[in-house]
Amino acid sequence: MLEVAELDLGRAERRGYPEAIYCEGKTPEQVRAIAERLREAADDGTTTGVVLFTRAAPEHARAVLDVLPDAAHDEASRLLAWPPEPPLPTGTLVAVFCAGTSDLPVAREAMLTARYLGRETELVVDVGVAGLHRVLARRGLIERAGVIVVVAGMDGALASVIAGLARAPVVAVPTSVGYGAAFEGLAPLLSMLNACAPGVGVVNIDNGYGAGHLAAQIAAR
Amino acid sequence: MLEVAELDLGRAERRGYPEAIYCEGKTPEQVRAIAERLREAADDGTTTGVVLFTRAAPEHARAVLDVLPDAAHDEASRLLAWPPEPPLPTGTLVAVFCAGTSDLPVAREAMLTARYLGRETELVVDVGVAGLHRVLARRGLIERAGVIVVVAGMDGALASVIAGLARAPVVAVPTSVGYGAAFEGLAPLLSMLNACAPGVGVVNIDNGYGAGHLAAQIAAR
Amino acid sequence: MLEVAELDLGRAERRGYPEAIYCEGKTPEQVRAIAERLREAADDGTTTGVVLFTRAAPEHARAVLDVLPDAAHDEASRLLAWPPEPPLPTGTLVAVFCAGTSDLPVAREAMLTARYLGRETELVVDVGVAGLHRVLARRGLIERAGVIVVVAGMDGALASVIAGLARAPVVAVPTSVGYGAAFEGLAPLLSMLNACAPGVGVVNIDNGYGAGHLAAQIAAR
Amino acid sequence: MLEVAELDLGRAERRGYPEAIYCEGKTPEQVRAIAERLREAADDGTTTGVVLFTRAAPEHARAVLDVLPDAAHDEASRLLAWPPEPPLPTGTLVAVFCAGTSDLPVAREAMLTARYLGRETELVVDVGVAGLHRVLARRGLIERAGVIVVVAGMDGALASVIAGLARAPVVAVPTSVGYGAAFEGLAPLLSMLNACAPGVGVVNIDNGYGAGHLAAQIAAR
Amino acid sequence: MLEVAELDLGRAERRGYPEAIYCEGKTPEQVRAIAERLREAADDGTTTGVVLFTRAAPEHARAVLDVLPDAAHDEASRLLAWPPEPPLPTGTLVAVFCAGTSDLPVAREAMLTARYLGRETELVVDVGVAGLHRVLARRGLIERAGVIVVVAGMDGALASVIAGLARAPVVAVPTSVGYGAAFEGLAPLLSMLNACAPGVGVVNIDNGYGAGHLAAQIAAR
Amino acid sequence: MLEVAELDLGRAERRGYPEAIYCEGKTPEQVRAIAERLREAADDGTTTGVVLFTRAAPEHARAVLDVLPDAAHDEASRLLAWPPEPPLPTGTLVAVFCAGTSDLPVAREAMLTARYLGRETELVVDVGVAGLHRVLARRGLIERAGVIVVVAGMDGALASVIAGLARAPVVAVPTSVGYGAAFEGLAPLLSMLNACAPGVGVVNIDNGYGAGHLAAQIAAR
Amino acid sequence: MLEVAELDLGRAERRGYPEAIYCEGKTPEQVRAIAERLREAADDGTTTGVVLFTRAAPEHARAVLDVLPDAAHDEASRLLAWPPEPPLPTGTLVAVFCAGTSDLPVAREAMLTARYLGRETELVVDVGVAGLHRVLARRGLIERAGVIVVVAGMDGALASVIAGLARAPVVAVPTSVGYGAAFEGLAPLLSMLNACAPGVGVVNIDNGYGAGHLAAQIAAR
Amino acid sequence: MLEVAELDLGRAERRGYPEAIYCEGKTPEQVRAIAERLREAADDGTTTGVVLFTRAAPEHARAVLDVLPDAAHDEASRLLAWPPEPPLPTGTLVAVFCAGTSDLPVAREAMLTARYLGRETELVVDVGVAGLHRVLARRGLIERAGVIVVVAGMDGALASVIAGLARAPVVAVPTSVGYGAAFEGLAPLLSMLNACAPGVGVVNIDNGYGAGHLAAQIAAR
Repeated sequence: MLEVAELDLGRAERRGYPEAIYCEGKTPEQVRAIAERLREAADDGTTTGVVLFTRAAPEHARAVLDVLPDAAHDEASRLLAWPPEPPLPTGTLVAVFCAGTSDLPVAREAMLTARYLGRETELVVDVGVAGLHRVLARRGLIERAGVIVVVAGMDGALASVIAGLARAPVVAVPTSVGYGAAFEGLAPLLSMLNACAPGVGVVNIDNGYGAGHLAAQIAAR
Repeated sequence: MLEVAELDLGRAERRGYPEAIYCEGKTPEQVRAIAERLREAADDGTTTGVVLFTRAAPEHARAVLDVLPDAAHDEASRLLAWPPEPPLPTGTLVAVFCAGTSDLPVAREAMLTARYLGRETELVVDVGVAGLHRVLARRGLIERAGVIVVVAGMDGALASVIAGLARAPVVAVPTSVGYGAAFEGLAPLLSMLNACAPGVGVVNIDNGYGAGHLAAQIAAR
Repeated sequence: MLEVAELDLGRAERRGYPEAIYCEGKTPEQVRAIAERLREAADDGTTTGVVLFTRAAPEHARAVLDVLPDAAHDEASRLLAWPPEPPLPTGTLVAVFCAGTSDLPVAREAMLTARYLGRETELVVDVGVAGLHRVLARRGLIERAGVIVVVAGMDGALASVIAGLARAPVVAVPTSVGYGAAFEGLAPLLSMLNACAPGVGVVNIDNGYGAGHLAAQIAAR
Repeated sequence: MLEVAELDLGRAERRGYPEAIYCEGKTPEQVRAIAERLREAADDGTTTGVVLFTRAAPEHARAVLDVLPDAAHDEASRLLAWPPEPPLPTGTLVAVFCAGTSDLPVAREAMLTARYLGRETELVVDVGVAGLHRVLARRGLIERAGVIVVVAGMDGALASVIAGLARAPVVAVPTSVGYGAAFEGLAPLLSMLNACAPGVGVVNIDNGYGAGHLAAQIAAR
Repeated sequence: MLEVAELDLGRAERRGYPEAIYCEGKTPEQVRAIAERLREAADDGTTTGVVLFTRAAPEHARAVLDVLPDAAHDEASRLLAWPPEPPLPTGTLVAVFCAGTSDLPVAREAMLTARYLGRETELVVDVGVAGLHRVLARRGLIERAGVIVVVAGMDGALASVIAGLARAPVVAVPTSVGYGAAFEGLAPLLSMLNACAPGVGVVNIDNGYGAGHLAAQIAAR
Repeated sequence: MLEVAELDLGRAERRGYPEAIYCEGKTPEQVRAIAERLREAADDGTTTGVVLFTRAAPEHARAVLDVLPDAAHDEASRLLAWPPEPPLPTGTLVAVFCAGTSDLPVAREAMLTARYLGRETELVVDVGVAGLHRVLARRGLIERAGVIVVVAGMDGALASVIAGLARAPVVAVPTSVGYGAAFEGLAPLLSMLNACAPGVGVVNIDNGYGAGHLAAQIAAR
Repeated sequence: MLEVAELDLGRAERRGYPEAIYCEGKTPEQVRAIAERLREAADDGTTTGVVLFTRAAPEHARAVLDVLPDAAHDEASRLLAWPPEPPLPTGTLVAVFCAGTSDLPVAREAMLTARYLGRETELVVDVGVAGLHRVLARRGLIERAGVIVVVAGMDGALASVIAGLARAPVVAVPTSVGYGAAFEGLAPLLSMLNACAPGVGVVNIDNGYGAGHLAAQIAAR
Repeated sequence: MLEVAELDLGRAERRGYPEAIYCEGKTPEQVRAIAERLREAADDGTTTGVVLFTRAAPEHARAVLDVLPDAAHDEASRLLAWPPEPPLPTGTLVAVFCAGTSDLPVAREAMLTARYLGRETELVVDVGVAGLHRVLARRGLIERAGVIVVVAGMDGALASVIAGLARAPVVAVPTSVGYGAAFEGLAPLLSMLNACAPGVGVVNIDNGYGAGHLAAQIAAR
């Protein structure tokens, strides 16, 4: 087990944000070993702040909860956080816009990540471009936010539409929602990279964690 | 020369729409020979209706105009029509929405094709999604049209936005306008194929002729 | 649950066609909640016309039928419609041509969508290009239709062949039927986008719903 | 110069077909040196049969003709043959079907290659699928041929249509004719690889030489 | 069931080769119905020659064997043939070269197809390019064959190597054997399309049936 | 000319940032007309702040400078700005890291855009990952910056390396610098989207303007 | 069974390295038959050195262990070796750097292959670029190694970073670890092929065996 | 000019190999400035060993030769070296195999790079797989070499064939030689990555410099 993972416990100090454990591709045993080392580090006072476990399948979650039973667990977004309490929010508001119901797990991952990294968050669901009035009805939130996360699959058009309305920077998350020529998220990825309105930074397909992290950094000041 | 091209002069009767000559990949001599055969057919009374020459480079255009000096020539869209007079319009209105100035050649090709195939047309330029108010200001036209052609490069988001507002079917034309991850029109092509609003039929990248033809067929009745 | 979906109940009025619920990527619980809201809206008289549930897996179908037990359910195409009676047909005929038996689920989805949106439909199966005489034997139908939906995988050649014979516009649906270099439907998608006969509008791979919707719009007048 | 090319002069004996010199990517000087060595080999009686120079740009052609002034040169297909006389034809008929005028250079390359490799050939031009009656009018030739070469760009549908009508094997050549989603010949390549009728062997995009060679081998017996 | 499939029973007469039923994507019930119609046609004397069922999963095979219990069934290649006896071979020899053990199912499908279409066949296994001496040891067979089918995944190099040694035409079948940058057969597909030796016709990835059919046609005379 | 472009002069007020004119794909005449309208708007007092002309070829630049002779022109990045004076900087520092000399035009476009949008900027050149000590020598700047723009082609690894060291958000710009398997910028694009350190937002290939705009928004507060 | 596999038992002598059996795509029965032939060959004294079974699923492993019960089996990397003892190491040190825990199976396959081919090996885990200090802390090993294997998914940046620090050649193994725009390993593959530091040779995605083999060859002298 | 390039003059000491200047994408002025700094460093005694300028267009070459008139210049491979004398060779032999004449520029770049980095080299041209006897005739060289560089476009099969014969490691260089489905070198790149014989490390398409560098490192000991 010694060779499995070299935790970067000094990262919170170096980069200002805590470590996250990406569970996919790890065995439950490896995840459990990491959880144990985290608990030991916490007992020693080595780490500070919240640690996230992302993309945790049920068996990963069980391994974490066995070791850290008070961890918070959001099943939809496969996220665990420990300690379970998010810090008191600082910085500006992170608004998360979610195009369709199927994009919700990714949107929740973004929102929870930003929250656990210390930001106030607000989530709006099912505001796809096909019903433009739903977007326009949120102009107040668009103006109030310090950064906007847009989560959309299929045509990814919501990123362009919102960036065209916003003063704040937009973090765009393409999702693998869709089929056929969506090519597992390629369509919204390309669409967002080519957003006709400037002010859009794109993260990987389905990368709610990365979007929440980047949004938290942008909204820090 | 005999082996060059077998004109489908009966096509107007069979399909209801005249032949078009795609010039790209043909030598000017081949185009000239076709023009000559068309003039002969017209002298014999074999063909009816307008014939279009599409994607005509300047040397193609000169070859056509040498033989058919009264042909109409739109340089921006590289289109020639002969005889030069479009027929009296029938059917419903074909509205062409063009996202940006750079998309204009393709949009004009679509508009002129529909017009020469017998439809009334209206063209709106520079109504990209980045400035949504420009689109919303055209709601009257969107409601009035029998079919809407949307021409857009980059994110191709305009197709989704307009389809979400329209009762009429939308013919979407992705363009090669853009760079980098637009991949010569792949980005708007995929975006339009994944339009989150139903009612969108997509044609090939930069295919203004095909869009105008399809729109004319849809607006025929 | 409140954050799950914001139904666009005014869409029938705005766009002239009712809402459809895309089930893939939604949990059965989310689909059930939507069905309940629809029933409430119907009880309140808020919605009009038929609502479709598309790409419903068996567990989605059960959730819908629990709430709306009289919904019509076509298992092959994974479609449910409620209320179950299609409206009386208006407009012109929607003809659906299906290249092979394996394309049938998509073809049925197109046909049923058009029917529930108020059109008369006719479906022809197994008319692939490999046996051209089967296509040629349907020339009567090709001439009679107001719009033709072509459903084909593999080489997608049927779209070109039928468009070359038809006066009516063609809506082409590539399917993921095939293997290897069909690349999950990419081959017929590209083939249809490059149809050598004009008059073809393409929808997403396997998108029977979108094709039926577009065809219904085209055949409306 | 010694390190430039090691001619495979024994190939005619080993494989039964003579060497061809692919000029693209070679300098005119390199091509000239090869021509000189060929002439020397002929003077020595080392080689037998015709040698082809393929994809010869005008400067390549000049280099060849300087050394071998009686070489036959077909400018459209960029092919040179020396000695200029094709052998007396043996085997069965090679029929070449060319979908559009723009595909003609590739079709001629296929036809001439087969002819110089000793087959009788027949070329039909502009028989695209959009005008199906043109194909059907050639059923006699389709039945008479020992092998059929189909040259087509865009949707590549002609290969499927002809294979569905023929008893003879079909050699399909996708061309880079087209634009946008034809992706430099990818669309007809995939279409032909997925031909719904069996009996189709595909060669590289624009590879008229390879198609003519393969057809000559098939028609040898 | 009536709408399921329109069997092309006249195909044997028209093209000279019998129909094959592609099972993938069909339900076992659909396959059973086709088998029943075939048996009825045989009882009526309508069809002649062998019919093949390709890509038959175990449940498809059971459906066929229920109706046609004497059908021949090769599990490795998922092929069934009925009647079970191949015709007496005519024409020249079809040699099938298989690069690795994992390519064997596809190679067997090619060999059996050619055999049931009336050719003599010979299969050589595990002659990959990594051990060139194994290929060179088969030069006698390479010279004796009327057509050679090469089945290979990964680098697909065997097609080039054998075509460089053979007088006979080569039918190349890329397989999905491999991983990573083999991209489900894309690597050998491209490699074979770019074979540096002429005389190679390529079929779809894993398309043993198509390769056997084409080889049988080539070897017919 | 009237139909060419509908300037979004209210954008500065709506989004907080001025309009930019993307010159590629526009004719010099169209660019000149836009410049004239801008000058008129400035005379009328309709616009506020700087307007940028991006991707201006020499002929575009001449057209702008004819109308607005005092415009600032950076030839390397093909950028023009008018009025030529950038505003007094506000917000935090925008640091631009440029991996190689060939990436410099894109890096300068990013830097100048941020400067004209009101930020203080600092540019570091030739700090590729191959010489890691050059990056590590800039740790002071990495800590001081409010946002970091990373411009890199080829492997795009600089984005990951810097994000792993920084507290500030990173805007990553892949460039088309490279050849072969860089696929016109696809390699660094994918690499940056998959940066193993969180906190990276990606813009389109070669999109220095978009990166500078996004960085200016992030550094605003 | 006779047709299944033609073992290349002379390969150790010809190439200097023993045969490996790639289990994926083989049935357990085929693998068992190979194991039996190996044991017979060993009994006869025909083979020398270790034989590896790679990518062995549990059922493959059982088949091998049934026949060769003393074979060594590393479950994580799905590798079996027989005889189980690696040879005494010769040549220089093979250092394996593994970017993340999820890349460990591939890294172990590389390390074990090199060890069984006769090299001393050293494995370092979890030294991703996001925490650069972990890489820099291994400079001693980087200088000491005769060849370095770098195993990384996602951005693949570790290969560039280590090559920029090393005098020894680097063998880079992209892995399929990641999601979305990692496209099953395409992102690190392209990144490594475009490494900005020279001295990197790339093997197939997840090809730990190939990397270990190549490294063993390089470190032989 | 100060911001243009930060030369890594300590690289020879750190990595053991001198710096190379990649000219593509640099202006001639930038290349000249670098040449001047190199001359100054040489005058100061700061650098040691040869410096290479790669991918130098004629205007780059003139800029270098203006400043360093005694530099060696190989026009075919666009390489310049200064000082012009390669070091006395150490280590083992680097053998370069070049599949076709068109691949020669890349092969020469590899050979010259290895030579200037201190190795003995030997170049063999036109040994494509289509004429296998040419490869087999070089078995002596294959056995004698310490490392083998294989340069091939199109099917890239030469890498597999040679690796299957060699004890030494193979560095494979795919080239962009070919057309159509060679996709600018993608076909040989994938083929080489999937070489069925182990012992192949692949570099970027057309990357002769990288191959020569890696080969020199491998052959160092």
